[in-house]
Amino acid sequence: MTEQTGAEGAGLFDGVFSRGGPGTGSRAWLRAMLDTEAALARALERAGLAPPGAGAAVTEAAATVPFDPGALGRRAALSGNPVPALVADLRKAVPQDAADTVHRGATSQDIIDTAAMLLARDALGALAGDLAAAADGCVALAAAHRDTMMIGRTLLQQAVPVTFGLVAAGWLTGLDEAADAVARVRAARLAVQFGGAAGTLASLGADGPAVAGLLAQELGLALPVLPWHTDRSRVIDVAAACAAAAAALSKIARDVTLLAQSEVGEVREGGGGSGAGERRGGSSAMPHKQNPVAAIAILGCTRRVPGLVATLVAAAEQEHQRAAGAWHAEWEPFADLLRVTGSAAAWGAELTGGLVVDPARMRANLDATRGLPLAERVAGLLVPALGREQAHDLVARASAHAGAVGVTLREALLGVPELAGWLDGAGVTSAQIDEALDPAGYLGSARVFTDAALDAHTRRQK
Amino acid sequence: MTEQTGAEGAGLFDGVFSRGGPGTGSRAWLRAMLDTEAALARALERAGLAPPGAGAAVTEAAATVPFDPGALGRRAALSGNPVPALVADLRKAVPQDAADTVHRGATSQDIIDTAAMLLARDALGALAGDLAAAADGCVALAAAHRDTMMIGRTLLQQAVPVTFGLVAAGWLTGLDEAADAVARVRAARLAVQFGGAAGTLASLGADGPAVAGLLAQELGLALPVLPWHTDRSRVIDVAAACAAAAAALSKIARDVTLLAQSEVGEVREGGGGSGAGERRGGSSAMPHKQNPVAAIAILGCTRRVPGLVATLVAAAEQEHQRAAGAWHAEWEPFADLLRVTGSAAAWGAELTGGLVVDPARMRANLDATRGLPLAERVAGLLVPALGREQAHDLVARASAHAGAVGVTLREALLGVPELAGWLDGAGVTSAQIDEALDPAGYLGSARVFTDAALDAHTRRQK
Amino acid sequence: MTEQTGAEGAGLFDGVFSRGGPGTGSRAWLRAMLDTEAALARALERAGLAPPGAGAAVTEAAATVPFDPGALGRRAALSGNPVPALVADLRKAVPQDAADTVHRGATSQDIIDTAAMLLARDALGALAGDLAAAADGCVALAAAHRDTMMIGRTLLQQAVPVTFGLVAAGWLTGLDEAADAVARVRAARLAVQFGGAAGTLASLGADGPAVAGLLAQELGLALPVLPWHTDRSRVIDVAAACAAAAAALSKIARDVTLLAQSEVGEVREGGGGSGAGERRGGSSAMPHKQNPVAAIAILGCTRRVPGLVATLVAAAEQEHQRAAGAWHAEWEPFADLLRVTGSAAAWGAELTGGLVVDPARMRANLDATRGLPLAERVAGLLVPALGREQAHDLVARASAHAGAVGVTLREALLGVPELAGWLDGAGVTSAQIDEALDPAGYLGSARVFTDAALDAHTRRQK
Amino acid sequence: MTEQTGAEGAGLFDGVFSRGGPGTGSRAWLRAMLDTEAALARALERAGLAPPGAGAAVTEAAATVPFDPGALGRRAALSGNPVPALVADLRKAVPQDAADTVHRGATSQDIIDTAAMLLARDALGALAGDLAAAADGCVALAAAHRDTMMIGRTLLQQAVPVTFGLVAAGWLTGLDEAADAVARVRAARLAVQFGGAAGTLASLGADGPAVAGLLAQELGLALPVLPWHTDRSRVIDVAAACAAAAAALSKIARDVTLLAQSEVGEVREGGGGSGAGERRGGSSAMPHKQNPVAAIAILGCTRRVPGLVATLVAAAEQEHQRAAGAWHAEWEPFADLLRVTGSAAAWGAELTGGLVVDPARMRANLDATRGLPLAERVAGLLVPALGREQAHDLVARASAHAGAVGVTLREALLGVPELAGWLDGAGVTSAQIDEALDPAGYLGSARVFTDAALDAHTRRQK
Repeated sequence: MTEQTGAEGAGLFDGVFSRGGPGTGSRAWLRAMLDTEAALARALERAGLAPPGAGAAVTEAAATVPFDPGALGRRAALSGNPVPALVADLRKAVPQDAADTVHRGATSQDIIDTAAMLLARDALGALAGDLAAAADGCVALAAAHRDTMMIGRTLLQQAVPVTFGLVAAGWLTGLDEAADAVARVRAARLAVQFGGAAGTLASLGADGPAVAGLLAQELGLALPVLPWHTDRSRVIDVAAACAAAAAALSKIARDVTLLAQSEVGEVREGGGGSGAGERRGGSSAMPHKQNPVAAIAILGCTRRVPGLVATLVAAAEQEHQRAAGAWHAEWEPFADLLRVTGSAAAWGAELTGGLVVDPARMRANLDATRGLPLAERVAGLLVPALGREQAHDLVARASAHAGAVGVTLREALLGVPELAGWLDGAGVTSAQIDEALDPAGYLGSARVFTDAALDAHTRRQK
Repeated sequence: MTEQTGAEGAGLFDGVFSRGGPGTGSRAWLRAMLDTEAALARALERAGLAPPGAGAAVTEAAATVPFDPGALGRRAALSGNPVPALVADLRKAVPQDAADTVHRGATSQDIIDTAAMLLARDALGALAGDLAAAADGCVALAAAHRDTMMIGRTLLQQAVPVTFGLVAAGWLTGLDEAADAVARVRAARLAVQFGGAAGTLASLGADGPAVAGLLAQELGLALPVLPWHTDRSRVIDVAAACAAAAAALSKIARDVTLLAQSEVGEVREGGGGSGAGERRGGSSAMPHKQNPVAAIAILGCTRRVPGLVATLVAAAEQEHQRAAGAWHAEWEPFADLLRVTGSAAAWGAELTGGLVVDPARMRANLDATRGLPLAERVAGLLVPALGREQAHDLVARASAHAGAVGVTLREALLGVPELAGWLDGAGVTSAQIDEALDPAGYLGSARVFTDAALDAHTRRQK
Repeated sequence: MTEQTGAEGAGLFDGVFSRGGPGTGSRAWLRAMLDTEAALARALERAGLAPPGAGAAVTEAAATVPFDPGALGRRAALSGNPVPALVADLRKAVPQDAADTVHRGATSQDIIDTAAMLLARDALGALAGDLAAAADGCVALAAAHRDTMMIGRTLLQQAVPVTFGLVAAGWLTGLDEAADAVARVRAARLAVQFGGAAGTLASLGADGPAVAGLLAQELGLALPVLPWHTDRSRVIDVAAACAAAAAALSKIARDVTLLAQSEVGEVREGGGGSGAGERRGGSSAMPHKQNPVAAIAILGCTRRVPGLVATLVAAAEQEHQRAAGAWHAEWEPFADLLRVTGSAAAWGAELTGGLVVDPARMRANLDATRGLPLAERVAGLLVPALGREQAHDLVARASAHAGAVGVTLREALLGVPELAGWLDGAGVTSAQIDEALDPAGYLGSARVFTDAALDAHTRRQK
Repeated sequence: MTEQTGAEGAGLFDGVFSRGGPGTGSRAWLRAMLDTEAALARALERAGLAPPGAGAAVTEAAATVPFDPGALGRRAALSGNPVPALVADLRKAVPQDAADTVHRGATSQDIIDTAAMLLARDALGALAGDLAAAADGCVALAAAHRDTMMIGRTLLQQAVPVTFGLVAAGWLTGLDEAADAVARVRAARLAVQFGGAAGTLASLGADGPAVAGLLAQELGLALPVLPWHTDRSRVIDVAAACAAAAAALSKIARDVTLLAQSEVGEVREGGGGSGAGERRGGSSAMPHKQNPVAAIAILGCTRRVPGLVATLVAAAEQEHQRAAGAWHAEWEPFADLLRVTGSAAAWGAELTGGLVVDPARMRANLDATRGLPLAERVAGLLVPALGREQAHDLVARASAHAGAVGVTLREALLGVPELAGWLDGAGVTSAQIDEALDPAGYLGSARVFTDAALDAHTRRQK
């Protein structure tokens, strides 16, 4: 996982928010725009609408001329986007007969929208890889801890026993579902945008569709039914895939921050491979601290996703043949969403791959519930002899006693003479009580569900 | 399209925000929860875990007892959700031996999450129907107006000619894409949630998966790989489908409000079928007004979608085996999102089905551009004789003159002696000029794209 | 704190999301609209623009006629809002000469916007009361626990000692700041909206401003500089005040859910006063559970606030003299925001007022850090004798040993012969070590800050 | 208005989204963090906690050493934020005895939160300036067009007459309200954050508050009642001020895009002063186009505000003494929000200052309503003679005829013999009709409201 580049490869917070994946900053946008212009020139040449060599000339210039994003950005103020300035500069950088080929038939939106799809392809590719790596980590955790008991917690209160394998299997399923969404959008929904001034490709006469098809070929993007300049569902689909990935990652990260609490201590993050010498998550001032940096960074990223998704969904209301503002409002949030989701996934891969689990602490926390989560089960043991009502009543009294005095349910049942008498009368032995109070016997389908998740993961990789 | 019921069928704004579709208010939630409890009882009986007749008894009570949502809602304050109160009342409403069957193996979240899926199934079903109806309207518009010319507008400025058929085809494609998303989510992602206290179904021993499978069967929902109580991707998928639908509808509605402006006047809404006698969109005080009520109502609905989607995406970060707050935060927004998206679609079906198009006004607005959008095309005519540069220069001067004096480009070209002299010298006839200035000849692939959208629509219905 | 009414006073989730405060549902809206129409009639009469008695007649009808929100809601589909139907019915309900007075000079937006301000006034009033009650609870907690030590936690890891008094003081300050925002908005920013068809009050000739002034007087709302129909900053101000309140409440609730975790156990919620007999937060199946229902309900409310605020902020972009959709999009979210924020505050008042603190458990958790948070302080003790570098090194080694072996820092320092030798050589006694390791001596300004917060609270109440 | 710098002063979209104001990118953050560290060193020295000269030494290093944001950003991955790396480097850059002073008493959050306040101070300062400049433009427009009639538009339909002065006065009031919010927050709510590891400033013993006070003095920020590390209301207040500014600006921009539509043509943007030679908003391909670039850029900025605000509001739920993720999630959105709001304001100042109004076109569009908006007024003329009912009926018939045949209301009234007969019978002269149909007589309080807004603006500047 190489450290990645934010806006300009020099972001003060890049280590947190721009980890993993390709860049989505100004240089990445510029590269994608130039790739689009170059592909268009080649498509025009292949369609017979540009002189031989024009495609190669534009491609060469697009690849080698050091355009300056900052300077283009300043000139973007004139027209509201940076494409006219880029086109002007690109035309100057190629021979005269290729100059007329540059941007022919296109409008600024064609270049920016198609570039956005190229950015998305790269970013979603990296995202898919990191989600898969994070899933690998979960597979290993689920397999290794199929039988590692821990207390399940609902509403942040200890509830009934589960296994850590089941927890990891749940994480795995979330990641797999997100990966499906990412793969589907990447494969099916990233399409070239090429419509000219108002979506008719009029300046290309009857050649528009052919050029559009060749452009799609050159870029390896899908060809849409018709230009999608004001149909923003592709943008929303990318956003939804990011939301699904962020959801899965945030659930894992939240669990890890909670399980890693000093008072819980059931997991801790591995050291991470990013530093040479310096330990991640350490604190020079507080030697006892081991912060779960990856989980925190994930949450720092994923908490931004809802707002970014909302911006993109809201932007879909676009006027006529090109929106006055709503389209513009997509550019930076679209790139930011890909960036922070990708960063969260990169962190997620490190997190699940390096998570250190402490089964002994899990067992200790489970035992600290003093058998109370299993009260229902003990009651079941007494029903044949005492009837449901009396059975319940007896166990409820034992539970109340255990809670009040701070002993285990077993101690209450066997230690309070009156209760012990009832048990005796019902013919229930202390061995039966022990069995009923063994959390290992109250895991229900934890193992079945864990295996089902592992199987489903294996199947989807085929 | 029947008027629908909001929260309690008595909402002051229901006519705007709760049109079409099934209810998603308290009564609908209660119904879905009762259906889930009843199905669970039947599943338990089929699994041999409940006495014969228990399923029927619970089903009967769930169907006939008049539970009061308000009273249950007040008791929800005790536990943070209304299920415990509902279960207590339901148990009281059935014979003793069926009472033990009620809710057996389940936790409150199982009931609420599964009920949410049932709500979604109904709401997405209605949504799909209304999207299809809206698409039908677009098909008719696209077909009828394949050759109806109008001026295309970018950034709210007149640009180059398009056809209204192409506009309607774009709307159609957006609706079709949204319909695909809705259909996919409805068919594949609505699953039963059944995990018991912490997702292990421990209280059912080894019978958990079997009961879960039967419950899914009873309800006609999918069976997930494992309980999804803290994997909220299904909620996000529903939200994303709604976002896609809202995006497509909002684009149409925005266009209609703009095209219906008094100064543009290219479309107006039909009267609507909802009123007897009263005309929709009229104003008693201002007899000249005809407000595009359907389009406005759509925007009133769709503008709420980004915030609701953001809430649901943010809620996916859920702790351990049941979230403390994030889960609760989903309930009303989930229902609201289904409601307002469904309402927008119901309005959309009326809108596209009844839209009145004024081709004469479209032509008049197109002509008001005085030929300037076709300047480029005229220049092309002169290139062979004058070279690119001089050709451009001549037409640019004519355009500037036309703009300054307020004449058409044709009048400028033929009426300014110097310019006319150049044309003459280039051997360009006024007939050629007229041809170049005919917008019908500058529609590019408008018809091709329109037909492609219609074909794609036909194909996806097969 | 009376249980309140949601949309129809019968919401299935009202116990969670609609606690406290006045209603904001259909009946509350209808009431506010009728109050506005009645006040307008009285204002017109006072301005000499209506016959004597017209004001009283309309006021009487508005107060007594049982208008049906559901029926009005259905008719709202005709014009896009329920006011025209309401006005028609209200006119029919008054004598002929008063009928002409009904709604005179007004447009639908005047009624809805002014009604929204009335809803806000009531809701913000209740919110202010509940924030004050919640603050009272914090004052008591901060005062009672000024010296109750606990471990501070950063990034969910134990860090250095704090006091629970300081924690409560921080909560208090947050609540006070929010209360300031709520009070400021309620006092200064709730204004009557009265502009007529397009903001000129033209149908009232020169009498518009006078009637507007009287209307403001009748309703006890501010009179704006000019009609604010498309200046939505008042709506945003209300939203921002709610956001501030939700922020303060969510911080408290999050802390409580974390401090109440089974493994932490430093606080638990009191029983709450809402139930007769049934204990809040209990679980019949799991007798050991005590769910922090109030905190969970708060989070269930506050997690919806960002999305609602975003919707209202986005809606501020309104066209010309009345927006086509953006205005409509405000209605339900505005009411929902007031409702869920108010509910969170009502829960907050119960929460802080009834919070049960366990100082012994706080001390135990603090002691479980084994002195490591105070390592820095011990090092300071050694600096005079050993120099900074050697002092640091020695303590770091002791800390590492303590962590590895699981002993306290004191045990490591005094028990490892080599380290003890150094201490001895430096002339540091075990008494000095003990003093340095006493967390009570490392609380810095906790008490000063606690007192400052209490003082500031006292001052702002004057 | 100088072009400003985005993240790295080299953003490809900076011309649109980063116009005006100081930077808020990595360099600006780094500068603010260094300013905070330097101020802390000086404060410590002034408090007698650092050797003489330490403050100056750190200040010198902070001002002159070329720290690299990118390199620091990469190291941020180790601890989750860039401060530890910065502190390490800063310590190396100063003499040994000053090194111990660097960051003494502080935690990373102190530096980042205080730096955020410094960023906000600069950005809100620039925002205030640009809002004032935009208001100046509105003052000029309102004053110049106090009597410039135009048609008011509701729901995007022509309604009744207004004046452009009133429109500009409404814009002005919105800007003034936003400016109040910005000024209030900037003056009262920007406070130093200084709490040390967990908000007690324990490592400074009893000196914490004194150092905090001196630090606030050094930086010119307010001193809070207690450290606000997990009380995020200041962040929300800044966000709310930005939301108010964005709301006011977006309303103006939306109106301008609509009024500048080719078919409306009532305003157009001035050329802008930013380009030398190149005309802003022009299109080389379409000489007739004049895009309202400033208005579009404003909307491109303001449409991002709701999502950013939502992210910051959601982030306020922060755990214990430092949040695990929610705090981190604020950094980039906080800066982005200041940046895009500031850019919108800079564009707004250009927009209102340069707006070109076309009163003749306004009059033409008003006349195109053919008198129908004044039908009510004509009816009033007839009431004395015909009674209300008959008067209404007559005018309604005339209006319907005018609409159907496409004549003016005057032509209908005077040209249809039957109607003319009634008028005659009622003793109403054509001069009276003409007077009633003069829109100048139906402007209500437009002028009064315009003057009130201008007066209020003048008053608030005192």
